[in-house]
Amino acid sequence: MHKIKIGIIGFGTVGSAVLKLIQQNGALISNRIGLKFEVSKIADISTKVRHPKLVRDAYQIINDPEISIVVEAVGGIKPALDYILSAIRAGKHVVTSNKEVIALYGDKILKEAAKNKTMVRFEGAVGGGIPIIGPLSSDLLANDLTEVYGIVNGTTNFILSKMTKDGLEFTEALKEAQNKGFAEVKPQKDIDGYDASYKAAILASVAFCAKINWKDIYFEGIKRITQEDIRYADEIGYIIKLLAVAKKSAAGLEVRVHPTLISKDHPLASVSGPMNAIYVKGNAVGELMFYGPGAGGAPTASAIVGDIIAIVNPKFQMLNLNLKSLKIKSINEITSRYYIRLTAPDKHGVLAGISKAFADEKVSIAAVMQKEMTGKTATIVIIIHESKEANLRRAVAKLKKLSVVKKVCNVIRVGL
Amino acid sequence: MHKIKIGIIGFGTVGSAVLKLIQQNGALISNRIGLKFEVSKIADISTKVRHPKLVRDAYQIINDPEISIVVEAVGGIKPALDYILSAIRAGKHVVTSNKEVIALYGDKILKEAAKNKTMVRFEGAVGGGIPIIGPLSSDLLANDLTEVYGIVNGTTNFILSKMTKDGLEFTEALKEAQNKGFAEVKPQKDIDGYDASYKAAILASVAFCAKINWKDIYFEGIKRITQEDIRYADEIGYIIKLLAVAKKSAAGLEVRVHPTLISKDHPLASVSGPMNAIYVKGNAVGELMFYGPGAGGAPTASAIVGDIIAIVNPKFQMLNLNLKSLKIKSINEITSRYYIRLTAPDKHGVLAGISKAFADEKVSIAAVMQKEMTGKTATIVIIIHESKEANLRRAVAKLKKLSVVKKVCNVIRVGL
Repeated sequence: MHKIKIGIIGFGTVGSAVLKLIQQNGALISNRIGLKFEVSKIADISTKVRHPKLVRDAYQIINDPEISIVVEAVGGIKPALDYILSAIRAGKHVVTSNKEVIALYGDKILKEAAKNKTMVRFEGAVGGGIPIIGPLSSDLLANDLTEVYGIVNGTTNFILSKMTKDGLEFTEALKEAQNKGFAEVKPQKDIDGYDASYKAAILASVAFCAKINWKDIYFEGIKRITQEDIRYADEIGYIIKLLAVAKKSAAGLEVRVHPTLISKDHPLASVSGPMNAIYVKGNAVGELMFYGPGAGGAPTASAIVGDIIAIVNPKFQMLNLNLKSLKIKSINEITSRYYIRLTAPDKHGVLAGISKAFADEKVSIAAVMQKEMTGKTATIVIIIHESKEANLRRAVAKLKKLSVVKKVCNVIRVGL
Repeated sequence: MHKIKIGIIGFGTVGSAVLKLIQQNGALISNRIGLKFEVSKIADISTKVRHPKLVRDAYQIINDPEISIVVEAVGGIKPALDYILSAIRAGKHVVTSNKEVIALYGDKILKEAAKNKTMVRFEGAVGGGIPIIGPLSSDLLANDLTEVYGIVNGTTNFILSKMTKDGLEFTEALKEAQNKGFAEVKPQKDIDGYDASYKAAILASVAFCAKINWKDIYFEGIKRITQEDIRYADEIGYIIKLLAVAKKSAAGLEVRVHPTLISKDHPLASVSGPMNAIYVKGNAVGELMFYGPGAGGAPTASAIVGDIIAIVNPKFQMLNLNLKSLKIKSINEITSRYYIRLTAPDKHGVLAGISKAFADEKVSIAAVMQKEMTGKTATIVIIIHESKEANLRRAVAKLKKLSVVKKVCNVIRVGL
């Protein structure tokens, strides 16, 4: 099987997660695309981790003729930009999740890539593991996209969610975010809106196929949001979120980041904690939302390795050939929780009889609620703990024969 | 510019929407991918619509050597399957949104495509305009996906939402769905779960890279769900949805469709009306959700034309070269609604003074709420109608100078 050699520059959270994912899912990926990935070198100047593939100098990767794909996982502008440009000039494809370098130098990087006929992909730069740059730049390309609104910073969304749900003030919520690892010790880039502004620039650029000057983007952070604001917004049906806004109309383009009152009915309103979501409107597709984890090593690695796959295997069929035929479990073999509604005469012994029917089939009851009474008939709702469907069905068959049960009206599975 | 000739078989809702989208956004798409699409023939045996490109016989498209891409928009198995296989054998790429033919004959179609070195894409077969087959088969390919749960039938979701929100019984809600065009006159394929079962088969097959035998899928419709069930579920914190379930574990594969009690906290619970959503769990990415319109001509056409673009232009860079530089409006030029919190002494003339400051700048007040009182200071919350930011800022500057205003505590934009 043809082997693709990959170099990873930067061995922090993201770089090590990429290595781990290629090791963990490598066989599965090879199986799917008919190619094998090998991380042949990892460059990091300062890591204390030891690894046999580790080199000090990034140029040992950039100048290695056997490496065809470079993952830039250093972050920031310097020296990441130099690494990216040098790798491209050396004829390598580059994958990065570095929002700052793409937002500020995406145009320069793309021109260099075109000159050298290499690919640059950056799915992980916005929304972590959420596929959004791919869909915007490919699946949705037939649309004239007019609106892209994103909750694209997990730190601020965690803080605002905490303030909303637990009544904390900003500084308390920030402290909790730091304790839980959702905010850095120096949290300015997140809470002052820089991070979201980079992502807004990238989203607008990809969605509107436009060159965006990051310096033109207005952005505000969340420091001045108080408990009072959150409470008053709540009273009139709104929730406060840090929103990246990109709008295109005949009147011009708007790209900005600021705290925003969002109606509780809007799909973005329910995106809480460190989660991210991007809401998109197009002239053919209408309204879409993409929701998921906006940061973290493994989700970002999912995006990076997805980009690598797209580079080496762009013509992947939507359905693979030579699929293994997998047998689906019969419905009797599955397990689920269940909701059961039945009617029974209002007399003694009803619950005892019902309980025994379930117990006999090793099906255990989680809750029983006696509901409305019509004449001498009571409606009973029963919730069943995770059970095997075959057992549940046998128990229900028994119920139907009991003199203390008038009718089993409905059985519905409970999930999620 | 190189011209790609497309043939559309079937001129109903989907076929005509594809034609319309290519006409409407054609220039924009050409601009982006450097290729021009031309619908050179449309085949429909029964349409009464007149169109200069219309032919009666689908084989006039299939046998046309100039056409390289065939859009199958007939639906159902016969004669759609024959058209698809014949087009592939004639060396053409095929795009379809026909869930039934892909669920039942996807394997056969893919084998024929491999033999003839053509591409088959079917993004529109699940979730209408929502990019989901693309992300599952490409962006997320690095993951071992373990769970895919979908609200994939708009008709049943509309009916269940109506039953939940308006207290209607099933037959009443069905009637309303039919009146609004969300259910067909013969609604069995939707309400009995067939449609969702086809989509479950496709989702499972793509997500797990597995051959799925549709006949093994257990499915139930929603006819037996009553108002009582919805009310009792609500009381214990659940909402009832028709859910397509696909789960993979060491214990085996589960693919099924049935009404399910979903906790109100779950992201899928808020998907209402005719909207669709697919929730996905992968071992690297964690939890994702894709939300959008599950049906309709224009959203499906968005998916179909997206597939055409992916076939002709698989190596599209995430950022285009030669982007037009678009100027972003300055923050002063934007318009927005606003939330303003200020404090004022509790005396006469406060509101008059505030109102005048806004009116002088042509900024109009939507609502004023007097909030808490601390000593002799009142907190006032004001909501401002859509206004130009420059005017709003001038008004706020004036407020700050008023003797009847103690402090303007916060100004937050209101959006969505």
